[in-house]
Amino acid sequence: MKSLREYLWFEIKGRRGFVNITDTVQELVRKSEIKHGLCLCNAMHITASVFINDDESGLHHDYEVWLEKLAPHAPTSQYHHNRTREDNADAHLKRQIMGREVVVAVTDGKLDLGPWEQIFYGEFDGNRRKRVLVKIIGE
Amino acid sequence: MKSLREYLWFEIKGRRGFVNITDTVQELVRKSEIKHGLCLCNAMHITASVFINDDESGLHHDYEVWLEKLAPHAPTSQYHHNRTREDNADAHLKRQIMGREVVVAVTDGKLDLGPWEQIFYGEFDGNRRKRVLVKIIGE
Amino acid sequence: MKSLREYLWFEIKGRRGFVNITDTVQELVRKSEIKHGLCLCNAMHITASVFINDDESGLHHDYEVWLEKLAPHAPTSQYHHNRTREDNADAHLKRQIMGREVVVAVTDGKLDLGPWEQIFYGEFDGNRRKRVLVKIIGE
Repeated sequence: MKSLREYLWFEIKGRRGFVNITDTVQELVRKSEIKHGLCLCNAMHITASVFINDDESGLHHDYEVWLEKLAPHAPTSQYHHNRTREDNADAHLKRQIMGREVVVAVTDGKLDLGPWEQIFYGEFDGNRRKRVLVKIIGE
Repeated sequence: MKSLREYLWFEIKGRRGFVNITDTVQELVRKSEIKHGLCLCNAMHITASVFINDDESGLHHDYEVWLEKLAPHAPTSQYHHNRTREDNADAHLKRQIMGREVVVAVTDGKLDLGPWEQIFYGEFDGNRRKRVLVKIIGE
Repeated sequence: MKSLREYLWFEIKGRRGFVNITDTVQELVRKSEIKHGLCLCNAMHITASVFINDDESGLHHDYEVWLEKLAPHAPTSQYHHNRTREDNADAHLKRQIMGREVVVAVTDGKLDLGPWEQIFYGEFDGNRRKRVLVKIIGE
């Protein structure tokens, strides 16, 4: 069994944003020389997500509006977590909706994705350096 | 290490629906001849889910009502994504709540599920042919 | 390839609660003697979650309030599932928000977690004995 582990680093300007990381992860699969296995991609921070959906700016706008409706940032005083001198409680909630991680099959040395599947880093509390972990195992 | 990858195909009549795929996935585990490993099942389309919950029709009704409340289909004009001549933005949102994938342990050649755990395909934008990917790795 | 599978048992007093299981899972990784691989932790019951977030009591309070807003327990008669003589339909909904499972990389014989990542068992319908499955595969 082979394995590879790498970090991807991000520093999103502003509070929230989405970054397509599909090509970067695909390059790591190639580097791993693994033909058949599983590829885990997870946010290492608890106010960020890795998720799979469409690379369409209108949809990303819709996610932004929707998440803000389900878990509003303001008033920040509504959240007990913000009594710890943070203002990011909403980011911990939004990340649970979008998820921490994805697991993608590796087949014939490539990410085995559907036609519209793209892997995204989702930031909900930006202006900080944060990491995504990529771990690939297989043969 | 062994691995197996197969597609399951669906064409759900109507916009939304749930299909129990537990027995089909179990049969693929048997076919793989893997005794101990991990089984990934994921929707390959971004308006569909694979999730684990109860095979109880009342609960499935409750999911339908609840998801429509959290991410309503209409008015379709509320979503920027629908300016792309789609009307399925809500399906992209609903799928994030229900999730893209499940990973199930394989132990002694079987899916290692709890007493009520059943694997479902969840469709949120039907009347199209779509796939689920099953990837099993182990020994 | 090596593998290890163990159950963790819980009986939460009251309807809902969160338990930090990070150290217990780390100990199972050590026991497995696996240096590089993947560790799956999943609730085996469909009204419970395993998720990763912060071990901060204010945040846990916020999750409790937020989940109750998104998927209220009462009135129990609003859910068809509760016609089966259950009163836990809301727990099946809450668990979809928080998720069934996490997959964590194992690197150099340890859980490869970010600085604030902690693994939790989340109970939404307590006062019953329930299990979490831990499955670790790798070499």
